[in-house]
Amino acid sequence: MTKIARDRPVITVVNVFTVEPENQQRLIDLLIKAINVAIRHMPGYVSANLHKSLDGRNVVNYAQWRSQEDIDTMMKDGTVQELMQDVQKLATAASQLYQVVYTDEVFQRPPTTAQPLPRVGSA
Amino acid sequence: MTKIARDRPVITVVNVFTVEPENQQRLIDLLIKAINVAIRHMPGYVSANLHKSLDGRNVVNYAQWRSQEDIDTMMKDGTVQELMQDVQKLATAASQLYQVVYTDEVFQRPPTTAQPLPRVGSA
Repeated sequence: MTKIARDRPVITVVNVFTVEPENQQRLIDLLIKAINVAIRHMPGYVSANLHKSLDGRNVVNYAQWRSQEDIDTMMKDGTVQELMQDVQKLATAASQLYQVVYTDEVFQRPPTTAQPLPRVGSA
Repeated sequence: MTKIARDRPVITVVNVFTVEPENQQRLIDLLIKAINVAIRHMPGYVSANLHKSLDGRNVVNYAQWRSQEDIDTMMKDGTVQELMQDVQKLATAASQLYQVVYTDEVFQRPPTTAQPLPRVGSA
């Protein structure tokens, strides 16, 4: 479980991938492979969190790293670059580095009726 | 503290705002006002998490809601719309609804030397 908080000493990378809906699940599978084979073993890695858009056209990786230097090192890694070549064949990506500046959460009230998770696509 | 996990019954809204760097802090202030005055009081609100890009050009709100219907209701609310008019004068926004499909986190190793949070802009 990943935590978002102002006092965590992390840099957040928000990577928005744009993809054809028929390739969304394949993109997710490639990103999971890249995370498990290479990215999570790099120094300074804290977390990766993949999200699929309900319309099928985007995937977001909300990732946390210890420092900007660690992110630079990861992006220059040969295995990461090789794995990301497969991703780049499927999708375009827009990436930015962020700092958390404000968080607000209310305790979640239970819904009045049971609400299953939305069923989207084939996953 | 906001949590990202596959088993949370939430819809995630990732809202990427694009702004001139000199207006980034003002945009953050307007979004905090909108959250506190109106958005957090709407039914189905779970969390809002503001992030500022290190280059000054973007702000991301990573928000969680109970359901898509609750998001629709919030967006039609008169007070929310009024507060967001001020935001729209400063920034353009791209918003998408997401479902968490994968999370991975490693326990954070303490850095070998103390690393302060990056200091960015005027905040």
